[in-house]
Amino acid sequence: MKDGKKPLVGIVMGSDSDLPVMAEAARILGELGVESELTIASAHRTPERAAEYARSAAGRGLEVVIAGAGGAAHLAGVLASLTVLPVIGLPIRSKTLDGLDSLLSMVQMPAGIPVATVAVDGGRNAGLLAARILATSRPELAARLAAYARRLEDEVLAKARRLEEAGIEGYKGAGA
Amino acid sequence: MKDGKKPLVGIVMGSDSDLPVMAEAARILGELGVESELTIASAHRTPERAAEYARSAAGRGLEVVIAGAGGAAHLAGVLASLTVLPVIGLPIRSKTLDGLDSLLSMVQMPAGIPVATVAVDGGRNAGLLAARILATSRPELAARLAAYARRLEDEVLAKARRLEEAGIEGYKGAGA
Amino acid sequence: MKDGKKPLVGIVMGSDSDLPVMAEAARILGELGVESELTIASAHRTPERAAEYARSAAGRGLEVVIAGAGGAAHLAGVLASLTVLPVIGLPIRSKTLDGLDSLLSMVQMPAGIPVATVAVDGGRNAGLLAARILATSRPELAARLAAYARRLEDEVLAKARRLEEAGIEGYKGAGA
Amino acid sequence: MKDGKKPLVGIVMGSDSDLPVMAEAARILGELGVESELTIASAHRTPERAAEYARSAAGRGLEVVIAGAGGAAHLAGVLASLTVLPVIGLPIRSKTLDGLDSLLSMVQMPAGIPVATVAVDGGRNAGLLAARILATSRPELAARLAAYARRLEDEVLAKARRLEEAGIEGYKGAGA
Amino acid sequence: MKDGKKPLVGIVMGSDSDLPVMAEAARILGELGVESELTIASAHRTPERAAEYARSAAGRGLEVVIAGAGGAAHLAGVLASLTVLPVIGLPIRSKTLDGLDSLLSMVQMPAGIPVATVAVDGGRNAGLLAARILATSRPELAARLAAYARRLEDEVLAKARRLEEAGIEGYKGAGA
Amino acid sequence: MKDGKKPLVGIVMGSDSDLPVMAEAARILGELGVESELTIASAHRTPERAAEYARSAAGRGLEVVIAGAGGAAHLAGVLASLTVLPVIGLPIRSKTLDGLDSLLSMVQMPAGIPVATVAVDGGRNAGLLAARILATSRPELAARLAAYARRLEDEVLAKARRLEEAGIEGYKGAGA
Amino acid sequence: MKDGKKPLVGIVMGSDSDLPVMAEAARILGELGVESELTIASAHRTPERAAEYARSAAGRGLEVVIAGAGGAAHLAGVLASLTVLPVIGLPIRSKTLDGLDSLLSMVQMPAGIPVATVAVDGGRNAGLLAARILATSRPELAARLAAYARRLEDEVLAKARRLEEAGIEGYKGAGA
Amino acid sequence: MKDGKKPLVGIVMGSDSDLPVMAEAARILGELGVESELTIASAHRTPERAAEYARSAAGRGLEVVIAGAGGAAHLAGVLASLTVLPVIGLPIRSKTLDGLDSLLSMVQMPAGIPVATVAVDGGRNAGLLAARILATSRPELAARLAAYARRLEDEVLAKARRLEEAGIEGYKGAGA
Repeated sequence: MKDGKKPLVGIVMGSDSDLPVMAEAARILGELGVESELTIASAHRTPERAAEYARSAAGRGLEVVIAGAGGAAHLAGVLASLTVLPVIGLPIRSKTLDGLDSLLSMVQMPAGIPVATVAVDGGRNAGLLAARILATSRPELAARLAAYARRLEDEVLAKARRLEEAGIEGYKGAGA
Repeated sequence: MKDGKKPLVGIVMGSDSDLPVMAEAARILGELGVESELTIASAHRTPERAAEYARSAAGRGLEVVIAGAGGAAHLAGVLASLTVLPVIGLPIRSKTLDGLDSLLSMVQMPAGIPVATVAVDGGRNAGLLAARILATSRPELAARLAAYARRLEDEVLAKARRLEEAGIEGYKGAGA
Repeated sequence: MKDGKKPLVGIVMGSDSDLPVMAEAARILGELGVESELTIASAHRTPERAAEYARSAAGRGLEVVIAGAGGAAHLAGVLASLTVLPVIGLPIRSKTLDGLDSLLSMVQMPAGIPVATVAVDGGRNAGLLAARILATSRPELAARLAAYARRLEDEVLAKARRLEEAGIEGYKGAGA
Repeated sequence: MKDGKKPLVGIVMGSDSDLPVMAEAARILGELGVESELTIASAHRTPERAAEYARSAAGRGLEVVIAGAGGAAHLAGVLASLTVLPVIGLPIRSKTLDGLDSLLSMVQMPAGIPVATVAVDGGRNAGLLAARILATSRPELAARLAAYARRLEDEVLAKARRLEEAGIEGYKGAGA
Repeated sequence: MKDGKKPLVGIVMGSDSDLPVMAEAARILGELGVESELTIASAHRTPERAAEYARSAAGRGLEVVIAGAGGAAHLAGVLASLTVLPVIGLPIRSKTLDGLDSLLSMVQMPAGIPVATVAVDGGRNAGLLAARILATSRPELAARLAAYARRLEDEVLAKARRLEEAGIEGYKGAGA
Repeated sequence: MKDGKKPLVGIVMGSDSDLPVMAEAARILGELGVESELTIASAHRTPERAAEYARSAAGRGLEVVIAGAGGAAHLAGVLASLTVLPVIGLPIRSKTLDGLDSLLSMVQMPAGIPVATVAVDGGRNAGLLAARILATSRPELAARLAAYARRLEDEVLAKARRLEEAGIEGYKGAGA
Repeated sequence: MKDGKKPLVGIVMGSDSDLPVMAEAARILGELGVESELTIASAHRTPERAAEYARSAAGRGLEVVIAGAGGAAHLAGVLASLTVLPVIGLPIRSKTLDGLDSLLSMVQMPAGIPVATVAVDGGRNAGLLAARILATSRPELAARLAAYARRLEDEVLAKARRLEEAGIEGYKGAGA
Repeated sequence: MKDGKKPLVGIVMGSDSDLPVMAEAARILGELGVESELTIASAHRTPERAAEYARSAAGRGLEVVIAGAGGAAHLAGVLASLTVLPVIGLPIRSKTLDGLDSLLSMVQMPAGIPVATVAVDGGRNAGLLAARILATSRPELAARLAAYARRLEDEVLAKARRLEEAGIEGYKGAGA
């Protein structure tokens, strides 16, 4: 929250080693004109801070929380148990087990407390999901999301055209 | 949509064998006073219908879509590619591989098109997540969700008290 | 804590559906003469209670906590983050994924907050591990554990003798 | 389709990052004298294009479609739902989970819509499978496939002879 | 081959315990007017027979082979190494590991020898894939496949209508 | 060793719950005329007995040891570390994780101490592998194994003939 | 044990390739003022030494044993079967299967012999768990653990503050 | 077979890319004074050669066969179906799925045809297992295996001593 506009999305990571993935969420939100805040709060190393973050989130104007963590990734679930805001779980691949541990410990939440889980290391999609949620009550954001989808489509179409014209070798030569 | 109130949540399943799990989503939404509609649309057997459903969803007043499917579960992703509404993916356990296939084919979406995935067979949480999303712009629903969370808490507290008082054998005898 | 003796082991489960497995931990502790208390506290449905339980555990005289939960099983990690007592994680098999989710979300804790994880549905071993921990400062309990190990050994030896004498069919006939 | 000959095999990839693997399919088809076309169409980023591609495939003279994608890999299934041509699914390993997600989300198709799945990153086999399918009505292609199989066999036999003669160290020295 | 019409599809299973799944392949082929033959040939227990079957398949007029097996499921690969016909691999779930072993040992074929793998226990899709392959040179079969796809679609549409009209309880009462 | 003939194969199980699977190993050895002995020795509950068994095995005339266990299945590795006889590991499916734990903890032995692992719950193959090992120095046993292989083959051929003649329905009716 | 103080924790590894992970356990214990000893004893290559280590551990004054091993990781279980001290299992990732084999073969111990398993390659947590166990009878160590937890918390809080102030780019520039 | 001594162990690999792992098997056999032969025979690319190899193995004096392959690794099973010699399966890690496919497609053989499977990429253990099998009828080889085991033990003991004396830093400095 650099410029006085109140952030709508809180992006929380369990460790600063998660920053590269989490930053993708912040970046796409920025591109879509959605203010977000980014911080660190570990479910295990700073349990009070995590709890306080969740409890105060709605009151501070946040409408969505994105929580990223790896390994036994409890952060999203812990936040979701202390707020009724939608919490997006972003599993981060840890050193072993290739992200399966992070994914399962986020997505398999017990009945009563949902976490909206996206792909392992899927920072951009976490941001886009937050934007889709906000857009349910903000038609202009829905329009920006639709424009974003069209841009994605156009990029693929342009690449397809280039590949069809240049062929495999030509496409590679062009720096694909 | 039995009584003229327009549904806010579209619940779509790939096959009627998914109905028992999907019905849990409808039920909890009903308890929270959220109107939903329930139908069948297979990404593979009725691709046109699935596409039409997604394209028309926002225009018909839906704000969230819940998509349940099993095996190579493409329904949520297919819907998410044709609407900017938030799409909740509900992986249904299929006959083999214990739900891992359903989970991975929902949650591992490529960058650009997010699906908000919940636990395998997690019908209730899919409904609750939809409600949390709607509640970002409906304070009275947020209040009902907070009340629901308190009820959950009270139920656990009551069980805890009963277990502490009755002990293991007494608790079982009481029909736990 | 039925009879005034203060419990040394707190056995906490996330849901009363975990009771059959958790009761095995209580039973073996009882056999070893270790007082335990048994209760329910969900990391997600009763986060305050779980936090309060962990914070007060050492002060109330507990020396070890056993935490059982299934699915995205955060209970053990959450308790371990709020006490310095050793916390034993007991992963409970949930309806899908055959316990792998419960196991990984307990054992793969980030550096700083350990959880002593035992086998999926391994109630008896959770109790025995608690006893081993207590026995580090209680020689008479160490002796009882050694006696227990000898009993286990004797049971296997007796079965081995019976099988060697009776043969496969005879052994089965004897109700093995 | 560089030279006027109509392609029989459509090779479609979800992203240009899949090109190295997909190019292997095109290459082996070329070696076997089978014309193919290569393009990009994402099930999620360009759903209309993917649908249009599938619907027009048979009319344009294609007899087989090869679809490669990674992660929640829906492309093959989506194409197969809109054409009755045989669709070969080529799962591409994505950044996490080592290709298991891509494989399961391609192969575990629900009853009614088959996808002929080959190994993760198995570009050459995807091309060979397409050739085998085309060869069911083209004896000269079947002959070329048989010759190819003999060449494969001869290569292995030559290597075997060389290894038997040179021994381990000699074989390595020869650049194996 | 009961009535003199020469079978086009050879359905081979490694063990008669696979019959229930394999029979689904035969049944759908029958519905589509495609003659098939059904037999047993184990890659491991009858290696000569399996080899002879593969070598003679094309000469006897078969155009596609469906091979079903469980566990370390080598049958499809072994057949594919001795014929240039397209071989469809149908992994059968065995007693342990929930079909993962059958799937991986079929689909992960080395470069050079493709197997067209379908879902675990996916008998119907194996048959449909064989029909799609045959239809590449049989327009009337392609038409029947298109009609089949429409029937599938109509069935889902009918169920969707019924569910929308009857609601959850009414739908169940009607025997869904 | 009922009748004075000295057993050549020692069959050891970690628990009497493994008996049904282990008995299959004993049975096939009996059919092949190979004397075996069957007993219980847990690597964890009777470590001394397990060590003593391994150390004395060769001296007592055993030439092969079959070790069956489930879960963290250490028995085979422990025995293999204390004898130079070939040790066959027979992983037994335990209550959770579908046998994957048993398999991996048997087969993934560190360099230096091999365990010859067979399929999960593969009692018959454990016995057959022991017989193959013994047959390397017993031509008459090799002949019996060859005859066994022919019987297996004949059984499959007979079933194949019956299925080809009777068709699916007829085959089932005949009690397949 | 360099300076005459008797070690309380025995750290044992199956191979010297495990040293980098095991050293983390020794290091954190040293920081907490807990004396430990570090050695190598392979369950498979030096079974006698492993057995002797376990049998003598309590008598030599050890109160906790940490056992690290990879692959079919039996060391912890073997030690636990010969002592009643609490044994902490530290699964080490081996060359293949990404640590899943090490984890399952440690944690899935049969009823009767518990191993307190921590995360794959989780050396620091193994040391911290040992300290928590010792602290059950050493209040001053409990206090040091509480101080350690506060330091962890403070580190995260400092990083969080820095990230909030510097933003993503500033934080990276500062060498995060 | 360089020097006229007839080889007792046939080492067969599916592809020359497996050579580094297979060479470890040959090397340890050489150290133990066991003659082996090494060649390439692919179950899929040279099915005739693989069959001929298996059929002629016993007649040529081989007593054990080691078969290494990756992915859908059928070589060991195919050989085992055509000889009654013990066949050792050596799963080679392939590019994706980290060796799990190779392992499962070797070890999960159907009843009747056993494969003695060792660890993924476990070349040395495959050789040692072959030696253990041969040693059942060759006391002098059994003695050499026992000596090898003692050497392994001595190496570990020496390393243990060095680590205990030098400490962590000293040990590393010494080039461990």
